[in-house]
Amino acid sequence: MINFQTSPDRYQHWKLDINGSVATLSMDVSEDQTLNEGYKLKLNSYDLGVDIELADAIQRLRFEHPEVRAVVVTSLKPRIFCAGANIYMLGTSSHAFKVNFCKFTNETRCAIEDDSRHSGRRYLAALNGTASGGGYELAIACDEIYLVDDGNSAVSLPEVPLLGVLPGTGGLTRLVDKRRIRRDRADVFSTLAEGLKGKRAKEWGLIDDTFPTSKFQEGVNARVQEILGDESVNATGIVLNPLTLEQIEDVRNYKYVKVRLYRDQRYADLTIRGPEADQPKTTAEIQQLGDAYWPLQAYRELDDALLHLRVNEPLIGLVCLRAEADADAVLSIDKTLAANHEHWLVREILLNMARVLRRLDLTAKSFFAIVEPNSCFAGNLLELLLASDRSYMLNNPEARETSVAVSHLNAGAFPMSNGLTRMQSRFLAEPNKLEEIFGERQKFDAEEAEEVGLVTFAPDELDWEDEIRVAIEERTSLSPDALTGMEASLRFAGPETMDTKIYGRLTAWQNWIFQRPNAVGEHGALTNYGKPTKAQFDYKRT
Amino acid sequence: MINFQTSPDRYQHWKLDINGSVATLSMDVSEDQTLNEGYKLKLNSYDLGVDIELADAIQRLRFEHPEVRAVVVTSLKPRIFCAGANIYMLGTSSHAFKVNFCKFTNETRCAIEDDSRHSGRRYLAALNGTASGGGYELAIACDEIYLVDDGNSAVSLPEVPLLGVLPGTGGLTRLVDKRRIRRDRADVFSTLAEGLKGKRAKEWGLIDDTFPTSKFQEGVNARVQEILGDESVNATGIVLNPLTLEQIEDVRNYKYVKVRLYRDQRYADLTIRGPEADQPKTTAEIQQLGDAYWPLQAYRELDDALLHLRVNEPLIGLVCLRAEADADAVLSIDKTLAANHEHWLVREILLNMARVLRRLDLTAKSFFAIVEPNSCFAGNLLELLLASDRSYMLNNPEARETSVAVSHLNAGAFPMSNGLTRMQSRFLAEPNKLEEIFGERQKFDAEEAEEVGLVTFAPDELDWEDEIRVAIEERTSLSPDALTGMEASLRFAGPETMDTKIYGRLTAWQNWIFQRPNAVGEHGALTNYGKPTKAQFDYKRT
Repeated sequence: MINFQTSPDRYQHWKLDINGSVATLSMDVSEDQTLNEGYKLKLNSYDLGVDIELADAIQRLRFEHPEVRAVVVTSLKPRIFCAGANIYMLGTSSHAFKVNFCKFTNETRCAIEDDSRHSGRRYLAALNGTASGGGYELAIACDEIYLVDDGNSAVSLPEVPLLGVLPGTGGLTRLVDKRRIRRDRADVFSTLAEGLKGKRAKEWGLIDDTFPTSKFQEGVNARVQEILGDESVNATGIVLNPLTLEQIEDVRNYKYVKVRLYRDQRYADLTIRGPEADQPKTTAEIQQLGDAYWPLQAYRELDDALLHLRVNEPLIGLVCLRAEADADAVLSIDKTLAANHEHWLVREILLNMARVLRRLDLTAKSFFAIVEPNSCFAGNLLELLLASDRSYMLNNPEARETSVAVSHLNAGAFPMSNGLTRMQSRFLAEPNKLEEIFGERQKFDAEEAEEVGLVTFAPDELDWEDEIRVAIEERTSLSPDALTGMEASLRFAGPETMDTKIYGRLTAWQNWIFQRPNAVGEHGALTNYGKPTKAQFDYKRT
Repeated sequence: MINFQTSPDRYQHWKLDINGSVATLSMDVSEDQTLNEGYKLKLNSYDLGVDIELADAIQRLRFEHPEVRAVVVTSLKPRIFCAGANIYMLGTSSHAFKVNFCKFTNETRCAIEDDSRHSGRRYLAALNGTASGGGYELAIACDEIYLVDDGNSAVSLPEVPLLGVLPGTGGLTRLVDKRRIRRDRADVFSTLAEGLKGKRAKEWGLIDDTFPTSKFQEGVNARVQEILGDESVNATGIVLNPLTLEQIEDVRNYKYVKVRLYRDQRYADLTIRGPEADQPKTTAEIQQLGDAYWPLQAYRELDDALLHLRVNEPLIGLVCLRAEADADAVLSIDKTLAANHEHWLVREILLNMARVLRRLDLTAKSFFAIVEPNSCFAGNLLELLLASDRSYMLNNPEARETSVAVSHLNAGAFPMSNGLTRMQSRFLAEPNKLEEIFGERQKFDAEEAEEVGLVTFAPDELDWEDEIRVAIEERTSLSPDALTGMEASLRFAGPETMDTKIYGRLTAWQNWIFQRPNAVGEHGALTNYGKPTKAQFDYKRT
């Protein structure tokens, strides 16, 4: 079972140094500390275990080190920055694992850009040696790239010429959409196994600058000082303690999140519990409560649960989302968050919630929201319902249960990857509905929620159990591949961004190639990499 | 060999009736007139042969019937509009054929929308019976959808529940992006094999209206009359005569386009010849010349050549584009076209050129533009160079060959699927370059073209032959699958539109699913459709 929790004292592959406003994140991969058997992590190549540490480090920078304003990403190995995803790991992994691995590494790189865009930390890739494949893709996720000019070190994307696959971590999209490199140059670069060195790499826009070996550290430092200027951030971080959880057979129990697997039926219930009654109202209290504050702890647990379900429970095809809470307690939290959104910690908490919700959008499982009496899809928890592929709300006119409720946060705090709120995505055809929904009512009973379009179905008690049972049975009987493609298409209506291009277009092409015989067949390029045998292609163009 | 040329007198599956301003395009598929062996086209299901006729009909409407302002798309079969792509055809086709089939049907549906958007013809799907799968996808490509309410007829997308694949002709994207159906309803609809009938289909936005059987024709006619109003178009069409071509061994020779295959090296030269000296200057002369007018004939030939290469020559991985012409003759044509772009025929000629160039952008082969002395990438032909993955221009300072030249048409007449011009896509990072390029110079020699960024490389005579030879050898040695995914990612920087979502995201997912064992394996759903055996899925989610 793959564990997504770690902390700097347990890192095996990265070193995180904080020096005032500057963090240095150094890659120093331990060859033998692999997540699986059968490969060695030479030349700072990485597997999922290495990337889990990187994701943790970025997360910690945001919560534990708000004073940091520049992050230098570099390597402790001589002459090599990073050789990318380990090819033997890829060659021996299942298709599903490769796909999940790429998705997680993509999310980590998007998290770097999220930090830069929303929290203003500037990331500098200090390439003290060659950055190839995923190594260059890590660099291109940073704001600036500096390459040593030692006559040898280069940046490259050798996947197409050497491995017959794509750079799978956003590289192609970021070449033309982020660095806006001319497409013919991007074409040349992406087919050039040896890549490009300093001068030409700079001329083509692949890097921002290059310094000779003896001046490299100095050059990077000067740029860091330029970024820092005279400003500093006066804030003290909080500690992200390990999540505690109990796993007993088919139940995974966190404090606020509980996952129950129904393996025979290939679905899971994921229940999120709302906050206790007394929650802090001021930023001082929030800071004091730290990672125990509900919106932080509950969403960290939800994040871990989603990653666990993705990677460790591939046979679970459907997740029924449930929320148990007092609507007013959740709405009150949202009010506190909205009122204090300019405070650094509240900002980070909100941004983290948004990232976790995007992780849900991008999870290749079906989600149904189940709204029963005493459940509470209010405010931030309403996003779970809006993120679901469909929702069922029990219509009991006598109880007049009003467990669906909106808060100010639903209007913009949690953008999807396409830049829209889930509410905007839902009502693309009827934007005026948003006025009605964000009007005075705030809370909706089943009939109101169905009428306004917030839930898909609102069966009455007579039909409820049957309808849910049949819906689950039907969903889990369908082709899991067709569902993955369908959901990836229907969840992201409206505009596209670099993120959705990476998760949609690029990922789908990579997944396609990842199962083509030309890559993974007996004579495929990925299979034969590093062997005395040579790849043999079926040259038919598709 | 598949032939993409046809005409109404040869149609086997469609009937095109023109009645004043109204065209009726009726589907009446002949079961036995299939493109390949092994299946029957029951229930108005279609194969590529059926769609080639549809594409031809739409093309002819634009050129031969400018007076038509409303097109009713319907069926001559009782109780069925269209059952979509033939499943047994899909089940017995190679992966590459399925992919090419879907791409062509997508282009045909986008051509309907192009006609509606730019030429103002309104398409009405008159569903006199059930429209399922590709049948509903054809309807949703129309502007309006009317469904008979006979207690039986429905619209449906049964691909996911019945076949374990996606609706492959833009259906999912058009559901949420064109008709902007709420994503949870789109989810329900796309997993409901039997689909939805009149009332609910209308309520959910899947159709625009429904009429009882006895009032169906009347209802559709009334709507047509509403569209026509009192206006009429006073224009007389031209005839699209069959293209003449000569195919001798590895040479395919049209009047202005010549394709020469180098099968051993898996590449082709495609040369387009420019116009003769005397070209019409007035719309009356253009109208009289009709389909022999260079910009129409040359691009119709280019279109046919591209389709031929895609479907009939899968082993050709690289096309070297060459242009032979007198730059001034091409620029003079562009001037005439630009000056008369409001005339219906000139408008259609320009829109057709734009569609052919988009067909090139979407062709899964590499394109290199080769600019040698006496070649002419000027004006509209410059788009071929800009559409190429890279370009090589011989730098002979003595000759001062200026065969790269811009015209007014490069600034907007030929948008890519992403809505940008190829020039804008190329210079995303340096939009101010456009001013320089569209400045006074107009013509560029090799050094100027390289300096301003219009060509990728400008080798001198000493290096020229070697460099081209090596570039061709290298390109054709790479994995054809990786190249397809790479080119699809690099060619479309910048914004995304419904079209690019269909060709990128949706197509890539469909291609992925089209080779998954759950679809096409021994126990896959597509393989087992209509057989006594049942699909068995590997339920692992990817």
